[in-house]
Amino acid sequence: VIPVFAGEEPTAEVRQAVRDGGGELADISRAEVIVWQDHTGSGLATALGRGHQVRWVQLGSVGVDWIFEQSVFSDRYVWTCAKGDVFADSVAEMAFLLLLSGFRELRRYVGATSWLPVAGRPLADARVCIVGGGGIGASLTAKLQPFGATVTIVRRTAEPVPGAAEVRPPSELAAAVRDADAVVLAVPLTAATCGLIDQAVLAAMKPGAWLVNVARGRLVDTDALLEALESGHLGGAALDVTDPEPLPDGHPLWTHPRVIITPHVAVNDALLGSLFGRRVRENLQRWAASEPLLGRVDPQAGY
Amino acid sequence: VIPVFAGEEPTAEVRQAVRDGGGELADISRAEVIVWQDHTGSGLATALGRGHQVRWVQLGSVGVDWIFEQSVFSDRYVWTCAKGDVFADSVAEMAFLLLLSGFRELRRYVGATSWLPVAGRPLADARVCIVGGGGIGASLTAKLQPFGATVTIVRRTAEPVPGAAEVRPPSELAAAVRDADAVVLAVPLTAATCGLIDQAVLAAMKPGAWLVNVARGRLVDTDALLEALESGHLGGAALDVTDPEPLPDGHPLWTHPRVIITPHVAVNDALLGSLFGRRVRENLQRWAASEPLLGRVDPQAGY
Repeated sequence: VIPVFAGEEPTAEVRQAVRDGGGELADISRAEVIVWQDHTGSGLATALGRGHQVRWVQLGSVGVDWIFEQSVFSDRYVWTCAKGDVFADSVAEMAFLLLLSGFRELRRYVGATSWLPVAGRPLADARVCIVGGGGIGASLTAKLQPFGATVTIVRRTAEPVPGAAEVRPPSELAAAVRDADAVVLAVPLTAATCGLIDQAVLAAMKPGAWLVNVARGRLVDTDALLEALESGHLGGAALDVTDPEPLPDGHPLWTHPRVIITPHVAVNDALLGSLFGRRVRENLQRWAASEPLLGRVDPQAGY
Repeated sequence: VIPVFAGEEPTAEVRQAVRDGGGELADISRAEVIVWQDHTGSGLATALGRGHQVRWVQLGSVGVDWIFEQSVFSDRYVWTCAKGDVFADSVAEMAFLLLLSGFRELRRYVGATSWLPVAGRPLADARVCIVGGGGIGASLTAKLQPFGATVTIVRRTAEPVPGAAEVRPPSELAAAVRDADAVVLAVPLTAATCGLIDQAVLAAMKPGAWLVNVARGRLVDTDALLEALESGHLGGAALDVTDPEPLPDGHPLWTHPRVIITPHVAVNDALLGSLFGRRVRENLQRWAASEPLLGRVDPQAGY
């Protein structure tokens, strides 16, 4: 039985998953594993300071930028997160909604109180550039297939993504966005990707194209984005994540007529419990069997 | 060369399609075919009165309820419309957007000026009941597959729809909607379907379910829908078509917090030209070769 510390008040789903995975909830002093659903580092740092038996930390988030930025990371432990198929489908679903909302100009209609003229364009025959070929990018590519869109993936490895017309390296980002009717960000926030979508990339985007971000707000230079929207160069932006986040009241993005903002809802509470429980259970079973863990964090890559 | 009358001012796409299909634009007096892109019957009735050589009428709409209601229909002619694959993908795309917008509660966020709490649920694992197994229903079913939703089709024939878990007859509509998290209307408006979604069907729907209509407003009893929304029984309604249509200013549907209305934009002008041109060209070629026409109207069925 694997002793697991899961914070002061583990959810019912986590408690169940620990049991089903062959573990038992334990005090931090004798825990071999920490299951940490929170996204703030201070409590985790405290737990690690007390947990002298800890060998592995299972995080509840997909993005792990915060463990590096808050200096919680230590390579004394194995780190796993929720990346991969557990949350990817839900984030890809949200990316899809934001993308299609942009193409069909839904913002114009939602909340209107009059019958407005027809606007928007179909996703069929559109070209979509997805930055990131991980679980989210692969799921979104599959979801776009029956809609007749053509997908280009920009990713670090040349490994093909089923359904994508082409895979290009990050060095070709500016060229890859040039023909795209929409650019979707589904890439981890690391030192290499922070501010990736800057003035130059925005300028390289096709006039009228949409930018969709379901990853991390700081991938995008917000000031440059506002300029590209105000000049009329971009068709619009649909953002589930922002910089700063939460976006403060009065920020100009809130009221821009071609911007849709959702408050980081791609993976919502209704999903979080059951999906994360599944990941915890599977990884505990793998840990007991000495099999490779799912969602292992690569500290060199930063995700 | 087939003489074609295409109204007073045919679009560039229709002119091109007539040429490509082996026809030529002609005066109504000698036209064998009428291509009619408009949706109002009076001009068409006038043309038919003058067109003594006319044998076939190609309509530009998917729904043909108006030719019966405005008494333009006559079984002296062959009638074809835009139903089937030409427009179906675009209408299914819009149905998909409205469905997912409902599930993810997009109305709450679009136009908000503050970072709101997380709401909404995923389409994954949802049950969707599609009323209508024609081109739109089949396309929507295919599009829902990679999202992990389970589809039930309600249709007149028992013919299976690829990807749908089950097909049920119209007599089982109330039973079919009972388990569905959303009901999507993609069925022609006929004497048999007018007012189909009445108080009884709405009451049979699962509490919290969404109603999506991309077909015709009069399929739904609007007063009963408003009651089902105001009582809290329905999760919401997303409507690309309304009754009355256009929905008049001040109508209570405009301001309901769980209603999304788009102004009949499923097939928009950007698509209309090229898609309809393709149908005109193909059908002229079939007419010349005495092959069966696409989108043939069945006057008995009313669509």
